[in-house]
Amino acid sequence: MPRPVLHDYFRSSAAYRVRIALNLKKVDYESRQVDLRAGEQKSVEYRALNPQGFVPMLEIDDRRLTQSLSIMVYLDQRFPEPRLIPADLGDGAHVRAMAMAIASDIHPLNNLRVLKYLTGTLHLDEAAKDAWYAHWITEGFAALEAMAQQRSGGFLFGNTPTLADVCLVPQMYNARRFNVPLDAYPTLLRADASANALPAFADAHPDKHGSAQ
Amino acid sequence: MPRPVLHDYFRSSAAYRVRIALNLKKVDYESRQVDLRAGEQKSVEYRALNPQGFVPMLEIDDRRLTQSLSIMVYLDQRFPEPRLIPADLGDGAHVRAMAMAIASDIHPLNNLRVLKYLTGTLHLDEAAKDAWYAHWITEGFAALEAMAQQRSGGFLFGNTPTLADVCLVPQMYNARRFNVPLDAYPTLLRADASANALPAFADAHPDKHGSAQ
Repeated sequence: MPRPVLHDYFRSSAAYRVRIALNLKKVDYESRQVDLRAGEQKSVEYRALNPQGFVPMLEIDDRRLTQSLSIMVYLDQRFPEPRLIPADLGDGAHVRAMAMAIASDIHPLNNLRVLKYLTGTLHLDEAAKDAWYAHWITEGFAALEAMAQQRSGGFLFGNTPTLADVCLVPQMYNARRFNVPLDAYPTLLRADASANALPAFADAHPDKHGSAQ
Repeated sequence: MPRPVLHDYFRSSAAYRVRIALNLKKVDYESRQVDLRAGEQKSVEYRALNPQGFVPMLEIDDRRLTQSLSIMVYLDQRFPEPRLIPADLGDGAHVRAMAMAIASDIHPLNNLRVLKYLTGTLHLDEAAKDAWYAHWITEGFAALEAMAQQRSGGFLFGNTPTLADVCLVPQMYNARRFNVPLDAYPTLLRADASANALPAFADAHPDKHGSAQ
């Protein structure tokens, strides 16, 4: 297999997820930074590769895959071990639901294009923007904490990392960047700590993929 | 199998998706309306069943499944025909990516709790709220149109409905409710028309599941 190419941005949560998943699957890949702050994702060249103009995009097996959750399911099917989604249908649904509670119900509200709309088009000040950011994390994490308590072990589901933990860790990183209090989510904190103790998670951290590279 | 119970709301896009998927799979189910406008989803009773306090929630196989995309993947695994996600890994990834382009990149920005935050907490007027609503549909549909043109037939992928069409139809319904112009998306319009010609889609329409029932 030719080495996959990840169109990446060090601080993108969605790209961070895919870096973790590639590491868990032990897939060697090349990272190409697309500078979201500089608007490189909107270039004609990048849009020709990915019409959505988002990162991540993974070039693998002569395909261009987009949308982090779809990419991770592909990786889980293509490289079955270690499993990111449990084999049992109901357990798999529970893990996917926790992943979606982050990937659909928190992250889309807080990503860069939305924050730019709030401050640019709607002229919100920094305090109002930060309150918005914290609001969706707080509401989402409260729900996720309750979901996770059903079946958690050291991780959100059992004692090995799943798709849910892969989504959790970048969202916790964002929450800390914006100083969102996290004490009310002990199950999430435990899973986050368990995950970050693993090289697959630690090596995917934004600080190791910064613009200085 | 006992008859599955869908905790439903006629106008919820996410519930509408699951109604379509259940119909495509020819699964007979009982619909229980949870009145989102009246806040029934926040009741202690409902939160005990679903900590997120969202619809849809599907009780099936002694499980309580949440998150529409996770539920639909469960249904696709549990009732394999007709397939909602193509068997080929790359084709499946493409279909999932189109579904996520709606379910993660458009719908979460425009759902009821977000609109309430805009008008309540942020005191936006109706015009600014409507502009927000249209903005994310317009941006999202432009990207989806480009994605769909890669492999569309009568539907977003090929000539049979997939998970992507199941997500498209409720989003098109929302777009029309808010008078968002759709002429720029011929591939989406064609898929929407193909889908709505099928009883599985037509029978799931909000007008057939209204509060009068």
